[in-house]
Amino acid sequence: MSWLPVPSDHYFSVNNIPFGIISTPSNPTPRPAVAIGEYVLDLQSFTSTTSVSGFSQLPEFTKPEVFTFEKTLNRFASLGRATHRLVRGYLQQVLSSDTPYPEILKDNAEAQEKCLINTNEEEVRMHLPMDIGDYTDFYAGRNHAFNVGALFRGRENAMQPNYEHLPVGYHGRASSVVVSGTRVRRPRGQVMNPASAGSEKVPVLAPCGKLDFELELAAFIGKDSDMGSSVGVDEAGEYLFGVVVMNDWSARDIQAWEYIPLGPFTSKSFATSISSWVVLMDALEPLRARPLERGTKVPLLPYLQESNSESVYDIPLTVSIKTPSGTHKISQTSSSNLLFSFSQMIAHHTVTGCPLRTGDLLGTGTISGTDTQGMGSLLEMSANGTQKVALGESGEVRRFLEDGDVVVLAGGCRKVGVGFGECVGEVLPAQK
Amino acid sequence: MSWLPVPSDHYFSVNNIPFGIISTPSNPTPRPAVAIGEYVLDLQSFTSTTSVSGFSQLPEFTKPEVFTFEKTLNRFASLGRATHRLVRGYLQQVLSSDTPYPEILKDNAEAQEKCLINTNEEEVRMHLPMDIGDYTDFYAGRNHAFNVGALFRGRENAMQPNYEHLPVGYHGRASSVVVSGTRVRRPRGQVMNPASAGSEKVPVLAPCGKLDFELELAAFIGKDSDMGSSVGVDEAGEYLFGVVVMNDWSARDIQAWEYIPLGPFTSKSFATSISSWVVLMDALEPLRARPLERGTKVPLLPYLQESNSESVYDIPLTVSIKTPSGTHKISQTSSSNLLFSFSQMIAHHTVTGCPLRTGDLLGTGTISGTDTQGMGSLLEMSANGTQKVALGESGEVRRFLEDGDVVVLAGGCRKVGVGFGECVGEVLPAQK
Repeated sequence: MSWLPVPSDHYFSVNNIPFGIISTPSNPTPRPAVAIGEYVLDLQSFTSTTSVSGFSQLPEFTKPEVFTFEKTLNRFASLGRATHRLVRGYLQQVLSSDTPYPEILKDNAEAQEKCLINTNEEEVRMHLPMDIGDYTDFYAGRNHAFNVGALFRGRENAMQPNYEHLPVGYHGRASSVVVSGTRVRRPRGQVMNPASAGSEKVPVLAPCGKLDFELELAAFIGKDSDMGSSVGVDEAGEYLFGVVVMNDWSARDIQAWEYIPLGPFTSKSFATSISSWVVLMDALEPLRARPLERGTKVPLLPYLQESNSESVYDIPLTVSIKTPSGTHKISQTSSSNLLFSFSQMIAHHTVTGCPLRTGDLLGTGTISGTDTQGMGSLLEMSANGTQKVALGESGEVRRFLEDGDVVVLAGGCRKVGVGFGECVGEVLPAQK
Repeated sequence: MSWLPVPSDHYFSVNNIPFGIISTPSNPTPRPAVAIGEYVLDLQSFTSTTSVSGFSQLPEFTKPEVFTFEKTLNRFASLGRATHRLVRGYLQQVLSSDTPYPEILKDNAEAQEKCLINTNEEEVRMHLPMDIGDYTDFYAGRNHAFNVGALFRGRENAMQPNYEHLPVGYHGRASSVVVSGTRVRRPRGQVMNPASAGSEKVPVLAPCGKLDFELELAAFIGKDSDMGSSVGVDEAGEYLFGVVVMNDWSARDIQAWEYIPLGPFTSKSFATSISSWVVLMDALEPLRARPLERGTKVPLLPYLQESNSESVYDIPLTVSIKTPSGTHKISQTSSSNLLFSFSQMIAHHTVTGCPLRTGDLLGTGTISGTDTQGMGSLLEMSANGTQKVALGESGEVRRFLEDGDVVVLAGGCRKVGVGFGECVGEVLPAQK
């Protein structure tokens, strides 16, 4: 328990301590912070502007400057897992009811005044937490891959031959990754005109008619790897910094026309939203779970065989759509619905020698459960627009997203007091 | 003509003035420079360490600091086309025989001593010229697309329905873009075991057996675009900074196994090499040419219709492989073998609202001519390894690249005195 009024089942309980980048009306410069319940601890102030540094009881932390002049978490992330553990553990101590260092914050009114922000009283603006070098999106949600494959190729041919053997993935667009709350303009793009008859397909430029969300988790890389070298699957955990929940917005009609033969391009690169607070890997440890079972007896190649059988996380995830009639939950699933772990993604990503850099973002791919109440995209829920999806009892229905819809992804485990908060995005009308 | 001993048919004649990032044994800090023949003009010294700034006769250039403390060309690039034109034009004047400012460099022995490096006398190390945010690779070389399509699907089905209507492209990997001269380790990766019988395909982890080069041009972006907005095709030129020649190394066997359904991933992200010197857009103006003619009567959508019919560049390009027996030219073609221009790529890239950032890199895709002497990849030359490609008269043959091979791409027009120099990479053996 914290000495601050934070319920133990809050996603940002003292068991979590997620890191983010904030600014406030009184100090518009972006700077690192951690969230604790409805409070935010400004790490720039905590480190530098109190009479004694907040880290004075942690002499092992030799680089507190990563919190003072940095506008992203990249430098902190690059210090490595041991330092993340050290700093998070210390902040948990400082914020706990039985803190051994009450003079740092608990009994220090001046420091509280300078460092602690009550988000219910003062506006806190969240920024993109990391400077993202490369963004890679995987396709490790096997139920999703099966649902989509079955939709377009039938159940018998739903899965591609490579699927069980490697984490299928592709390079995404880093420039269009935005933080939760950023509004997303419906893309207009090139789509095949369904009215075009004959053997030649004729495209038109039109606002996307099949705008969709994708429910994913995504991990930030916290350590560079060398070009020409591979990261072993059991050492890959050292390369992970933390996790967010992600909406990889997708334009299904644009995608269908453009994606052969080189994969999705403009149908994905218009926007990808991530939750604001990065939950560190250590905070997720209590939520470890087994991944989905493989559907083949052919063993994984050794470079993908992970010692820890609990390689993914069982985190409840929900999708809601907010309309003027209310907030309607349309999906509930778990992040354990993955065939491959982040460590396996790293081992595969680097097997050919591709270098990772601190700040790279790896998405899991869309996470869907096995039942119709737990699907991670409208493409699946509406069977590519052929069926109506009810928004609760409101009488409203959706096949795909409409202008003004606010998509809210959320994830976390109340029992453990660890979660991501929300990843929110409102759909704006297409440009003329 | 220059007052320096530079032949007018040199790729780096006074008609070119390409920009790059250099370091030297006496000053190992990377810094901006331009190339003039076999000389390099150190712009950091030119700007700041002579008694009078080299730019003293160009008061309109108000930000010479982009050359003093920067380790990339991003800040200079972001100043816009008008400034690129101003600075390049001024440097041409300073370096011309009839310079109006002889006191700046021509008749100034001290300044020459401080700023001019003769690369035949002093070692100059080249660095990646830009900090690359996102790297996108297109597929606009229609002869290449046809050759590859015909190889795998037959001539009748070689082209996909979307090909003539949009510049097909995909997101590449920015972290593995390296400067010419960087050695490239043969990737090992997951490939389908050709011996695996039965309905289930079984993969193995093996060194790439089909390592290939791809001959491309690539353009650097020099202006940010807003998320949610599109760049018009006729204003896209303002977003271009300069061009390099590029080798998009490819692992064909890894690609064949991984690429369905999301496109190439680890088969491409192990390395992409670019030539060191960025040739500014204005230097390419005399080389403008018409692109390939479209093979359909269905008109391009208006957002891709460019006013300037000479939208690509006719630049001779060559591929050579250097082995212990010598340097063997195996291909000669022209960069006019493209169906889409850089401006069309930008218009399409941003049509859905994807933001561009200064430093982004856009590749054309592999450039092949129509005859067998002008193909841009070994995949095409060897018909996917089924035919031997002779290395000149040496008696050596290749189907794909072997360890120790040095691939040399070069491009330029001697008549105009404008070229890229070389893009060189040696193949190292795979890691164990």
